[in-house]
Amino acid sequence: MTATQQFTATPIGMVHCRLKSKAEVPKNYSESSETGILEIYPAYLEGLKGLKAGQTIMVLFWLHQAQRDLLQVYPRVDRSRGLQGVFTTRSPMRPNPIAVSELKVLAVRGLELEVSGIDMIDGTPILDIKRSLSTGLERS
Amino acid sequence: MTATQQFTATPIGMVHCRLKSKAEVPKNYSESSETGILEIYPAYLEGLKGLKAGQTIMVLFWLHQAQRDLLQVYPRVDRSRGLQGVFTTRSPMRPNPIAVSELKVLAVRGLELEVSGIDMIDGTPILDIKRSLSTGLERS
Repeated sequence: MTATQQFTATPIGMVHCRLKSKAEVPKNYSESSETGILEIYPAYLEGLKGLKAGQTIMVLFWLHQAQRDLLQVYPRVDRSRGLQGVFTTRSPMRPNPIAVSELKVLAVRGLELEVSGIDMIDGTPILDIKRSLSTGLERS
Repeated sequence: MTATQQFTATPIGMVHCRLKSKAEVPKNYSESSETGILEIYPAYLEGLKGLKAGQTIMVLFWLHQAQRDLLQVYPRVDRSRGLQGVFTTRSPMRPNPIAVSELKVLAVRGLELEVSGIDMIDGTPILDIKRSLSTGLERS
């Protein structure tokens, strides 16, 4: 196993929301009251069994517009600290641009999950949904 | 954009720990007191700037041994519920086998991060490290 090994991730769905540009996007889910739809592709329907309105889910996104070759950024709150390693931040810019958000499920309609807490632009690919450990789904 | 779009993830490092088989691995990080080393590859050293002992980090792993074609599993605690969709669980088996753990940084030695909370087998590839939103790193 070497640093040049690669893995292939395939989207299980896509976000639909009113945020069309990065400038409009809340800096993270804990600051967002945006609602939107997680469209899950038909091949993955079975994986949603047991998902219900009222649960909190952890959602992984592939930030398809993020720059991947940046290793240091200015933290958004305190620029006086200077450049910080991306691995100490939640910056979307990182070698593997995977975002992790905790979203509240408002409604489940077949392959469409209505959620609140959206901090992604419309069209962002979804890689995974998990039980949240912090709140939400019962232990499984 | 279609369901057949794919993305390429490249490991930024690898876990080293005493857990050699899946049977030995704690079911998740909140139940683990295992310590281990996150070896970060030299190309990513700059991204660690600001990372310190005492911080809690969110670490994303690619579960290279996980089955990817399973969409329902028996939840480990309550089998009486029957098969549940993988997207309502933390099962390692899922279409994109990416795990998310919160680990405590015990020491930083150049490219080696000593951590506790390991719930991965030795040799598991690391995809990303982020500031934890639940605890740990100061806001950035």
